[in-house]
Amino acid sequence: MIVLGIDPGTAVTGYGVVKGDRSAPPHLIECGIIRTRPRDSLAARLQEIHAGITELIARHRPDALSIEDVFYAKNVRTTVVLGHARGVILLAAANARIDIAEYPPAEIKKAVVGTGAATKEQVQFMVTRILRLKSPPQPADASDGVAAALAHLMAPRLPQISDYSKSEVIVKQ
Amino acid sequence: MIVLGIDPGTAVTGYGVVKGDRSAPPHLIECGIIRTRPRDSLAARLQEIHAGITELIARHRPDALSIEDVFYAKNVRTTVVLGHARGVILLAAANARIDIAEYPPAEIKKAVVGTGAATKEQVQFMVTRILRLKSPPQPADASDGVAAALAHLMAPRLPQISDYSKSEVIVKQ
Repeated sequence: MIVLGIDPGTAVTGYGVVKGDRSAPPHLIECGIIRTRPRDSLAARLQEIHAGITELIARHRPDALSIEDVFYAKNVRTTVVLGHARGVILLAAANARIDIAEYPPAEIKKAVVGTGAATKEQVQFMVTRILRLKSPPQPADASDGVAAALAHLMAPRLPQISDYSKSEVIVKQ
Repeated sequence: MIVLGIDPGTAVTGYGVVKGDRSAPPHLIECGIIRTRPRDSLAARLQEIHAGITELIARHRPDALSIEDVFYAKNVRTTVVLGHARGVILLAAANARIDIAEYPPAEIKKAVVGTGAATKEQVQFMVTRILRLKSPPQPADASDGVAAALAHLMAPRLPQISDYSKSEVIVKQ
């Protein structure tokens, strides 16, 4: 099973492609970020994110896309703009007819580190360890994408959000 | 000049296609709504909205897409989900390489009715009058899409939001 994990953002979207099955430990195929130009319009940036995810799906043919669900953001505006990015990412997955799994950030941390309150450094450490990498995926956004993929592989019975309308959005003011 | 006006929403997206130039009063070409199924996943609904807008652009070849910018919503979650819908709409416009104009709802009302505090009924009344229609566009969401198109045609010097990062998001709790 190949999972494309995504940490969405309009400026930087992190991703990780991880392969896993029951007989072998998970294996990192590729990770990285899609970085957009701050001077570009939001529409142009969304176009780049959508094209990037579409390209990754076409190249790796993942069985599922796993994406962070709950939005922690500095303010409402940031959160709503993030919603735009998530929208074009979900569209790319729907167009490719692959399964979509949405996990709150705390569930991703819990699956990878063991606690929902884990720091970014702890997530990076465990991602490196689980995938037997020589160094943590860089930058941190790529690591968060890998963590989203791992969470879906490692905890198939996590409380997944299938019905988005029931999901919770937390905004840090 | 042909403008496709949009009132975005995940459940119902209203639209209006209006033609206008300096020598003649604006003329309604088509209006309606894209309604999605509540039981479908968010991704499936986004796919439908994106396909609908893409089809409208291909059929009418508008010069610009005019869309409501500021989000009034009952709560943060609704607003963030609305961001997803706006994301795939902006993507459709960017993919078709047409201009995008974003106006806060109050500016659209001001352009069409004369006051930013206009009611939905006042907007419907003025849309009907300006376009010399026998009856108001139905449902109200279609009318709001038409109003967005009219605002762009009638007030080219409105304070347009070109840089999304500077826009304001208002959330009614």
